[in-house]
Amino acid sequence: MNRKQRSEYSTIPKSSPIRVGFIGLSSSKGWAVKTHYQAILQLSSQFQITALYNKKIDSSIATIRDLKLTNAVAYPTLESFASSSNVDMVVFSVRTASYFDLLLPLLEYSRANCNLKYLFMEWGLVYSVKEMETVFHAASERGLQTIISLQGRKSPYIIRSKELIEEGHIGDINSIEVTGNGGWYGYERPLKSPSYLYEVSKGVDLVTTSFAHTIDLLQYITGSYFGVINAMVFNNIPEQELVDEFGRKLGKTVPKTVPDHLLFQGTLLKSNVPVSCSFKGGSPTKKFTKNLVIDIHGTKGDLKLEGDAGFIEISNLVLYYRGVKVNEFPNKKGQVIYEESFGDEVTEVFHLRNYNAMVGNIYRLYESIADFHFNSKNIPDLPSTFVMQGFEYEGFPTLMDGLILCRLIESVYKSSSLGATLNVSNISRYQ
Amino acid sequence: MNRKQRSEYSTIPKSSPIRVGFIGLSSSKGWAVKTHYQAILQLSSQFQITALYNKKIDSSIATIRDLKLTNAVAYPTLESFASSSNVDMVVFSVRTASYFDLLLPLLEYSRANCNLKYLFMEWGLVYSVKEMETVFHAASERGLQTIISLQGRKSPYIIRSKELIEEGHIGDINSIEVTGNGGWYGYERPLKSPSYLYEVSKGVDLVTTSFAHTIDLLQYITGSYFGVINAMVFNNIPEQELVDEFGRKLGKTVPKTVPDHLLFQGTLLKSNVPVSCSFKGGSPTKKFTKNLVIDIHGTKGDLKLEGDAGFIEISNLVLYYRGVKVNEFPNKKGQVIYEESFGDEVTEVFHLRNYNAMVGNIYRLYESIADFHFNSKNIPDLPSTFVMQGFEYEGFPTLMDGLILCRLIESVYKSSSLGATLNVSNISRYQ
Repeated sequence: MNRKQRSEYSTIPKSSPIRVGFIGLSSSKGWAVKTHYQAILQLSSQFQITALYNKKIDSSIATIRDLKLTNAVAYPTLESFASSSNVDMVVFSVRTASYFDLLLPLLEYSRANCNLKYLFMEWGLVYSVKEMETVFHAASERGLQTIISLQGRKSPYIIRSKELIEEGHIGDINSIEVTGNGGWYGYERPLKSPSYLYEVSKGVDLVTTSFAHTIDLLQYITGSYFGVINAMVFNNIPEQELVDEFGRKLGKTVPKTVPDHLLFQGTLLKSNVPVSCSFKGGSPTKKFTKNLVIDIHGTKGDLKLEGDAGFIEISNLVLYYRGVKVNEFPNKKGQVIYEESFGDEVTEVFHLRNYNAMVGNIYRLYESIADFHFNSKNIPDLPSTFVMQGFEYEGFPTLMDGLILCRLIESVYKSSSLGATLNVSNISRYQ
Repeated sequence: MNRKQRSEYSTIPKSSPIRVGFIGLSSSKGWAVKTHYQAILQLSSQFQITALYNKKIDSSIATIRDLKLTNAVAYPTLESFASSSNVDMVVFSVRTASYFDLLLPLLEYSRANCNLKYLFMEWGLVYSVKEMETVFHAASERGLQTIISLQGRKSPYIIRSKELIEEGHIGDINSIEVTGNGGWYGYERPLKSPSYLYEVSKGVDLVTTSFAHTIDLLQYITGSYFGVINAMVFNNIPEQELVDEFGRKLGKTVPKTVPDHLLFQGTLLKSNVPVSCSFKGGSPTKKFTKNLVIDIHGTKGDLKLEGDAGFIEISNLVLYYRGVKVNEFPNKKGQVIYEESFGDEVTEVFHLRNYNAMVGNIYRLYESIADFHFNSKNIPDLPSTFVMQGFEYEGFPTLMDGLILCRLIESVYKSSSLGATLNVSNISRYQ
């Protein structure tokens, strides 16, 4: 199967689209309406929003009205929402500490809905490894196919990077450096910014967002988990200055408990490649480098990924390649063969000028769910569920992929607090 | 005293220059003739070569003839060389494993030379911390002023960086990243390259040269030693391919035991600043970044130092600054005062296009010895010896500065082999 093949039927209306039930979609504010909803709008042949649940039913009703969700019903309770057989996929996009508290009841109530097949969750909210394992078991036991929103894996820049590496265009990787700036975990706090962004263990911090998304993508494009790691987590800015929407200081400080710096270094399991990583919060942003830089050095070439913000999963990027390309040619069976060449170095710059990465990556994630559900690419013997994506092009990240990443994050904190270099080569084991 | 003041008398011939005895100066090959000798040539009013010792006296005689060292005597034995009272400063520049074996006898024999005041040693040869402490005690007991060739401290780029930081132009430092490529510790070995470069514990490797010089300079310009560190030392390329002088492969491999990668991260003692560091050996060199990059981020500005090779002490560099400069103005006493400003950001690029760093930094080191010896800057109550330079502009690095660096290197290896984050805050203690 050629991974460059487009979804064959993606623009043909489906007679039975995937019916989506949303927890946390509000037309008035939040992440879901800016991303998930925009993605579904563009995939209206494959997805249809049929159910909404919010803590206040008025919010659901207003959302149905504002967004003209003519097929959707507002449910008054989690139980009625979860047990409705009018839903094939639950999208769970609640950005509060009640995330975990809602999930287990949802799964329990959903036993009454025999049509439910997919559970789509955000990455990096209040999960500890233990909580994540609990949800993993509950979802497995329910027979659900999980999707976790590590959407950067669908970024065209990430996929192109992965291809350039796998096809041998940079030779053997021998060194990797990553730097990022997650600006908002720094000296200043906008008055309107939600406080959970600045409280440790709320799940949305420099380590669990900026770093975690980036390191997941680094593992994905190199096709390797980590062997040993060492980390140092800093909170060098325990107080933030409140600023208004114009950035003016309001003369008041508030405590901050989330980290503002992470140092991380380690080795990839594959070929013992050294990886150096520095994530910084706080203004000013960097003046001579981009706020996100990934340098991957190989024996035949180099890759560089750059972005304007240390949030790789929602940033438009630029991909630079320079090296001696290997030859690609089809063999008799029509497969593509790669063979070492000794030609001149070439440079490739890949950039989609108007790519809206915040919507685009989520859109491609939904697209891959549709491809799986409808088997758009006609993959023979496609299984009805899969446990994890791992480093495959096809499919989408699952709760198991998220769990492995969650274990790495836990190891980061453990390494930092113990002052130890840790062997993490077993965290990618199934279970 | 204004550190920007030039040496007032530096071009006036001295009636009694510092008489230099050289161990390891050969006109036919080696480091000393390309660097020390060139520096002394330019400081002929302050230094005069009066004595030479090489293992073979013929080499010394030929060197005296070739370089027209009309005041120099070739000594047949280490004892006769060391005990000659015609020498004020011994320069010890032997690049072999016999370095330590020669040093202690030299110091012992030199008791017969009551004029001997200075002992100038190369950095980073066969010293373990224990050996270095032994030499330190022997030299102290002899009352000698030591100089160690951490010559990058005299680089104009390093001094300018130090000034920009100390005067407050980047505000408080909050993050530092360092990457380097010491290319020759990699996949290929030139046939004519000496084998001690590729054997671990010979003292001239990626950790003891590329990394050590760089980290010494980072400490010097920030004015801070390290608090905690973690390191991982790699030998991912245990075999090198022999190549001829044109880079053609000769079809033969040789073993390599020196490291080809170092990951290092830690905190500066001052303000707990996170520092991330990745040093790589091996071709190809980096395609999208310079082979030496130091990024220092502050609350008001950024500094970037770049060089073409991961050998900062002998490389010409470029220094970039961008930030909000503080105001400088003289007070009533004529001193310069620095005061916070709220102006616009400015950019400063500092580059001396034809600066020969290999000679230039050593030259400035010799100049600083002359400044000390002749008190060229008329410093009141200048002591006759000093134990260490530390982070001062004046003076020069001593064996004590070298010993502190040597302890850091030992901690790097210890951290790597133990798999531990180490507290190194006490290695800069005197003794």
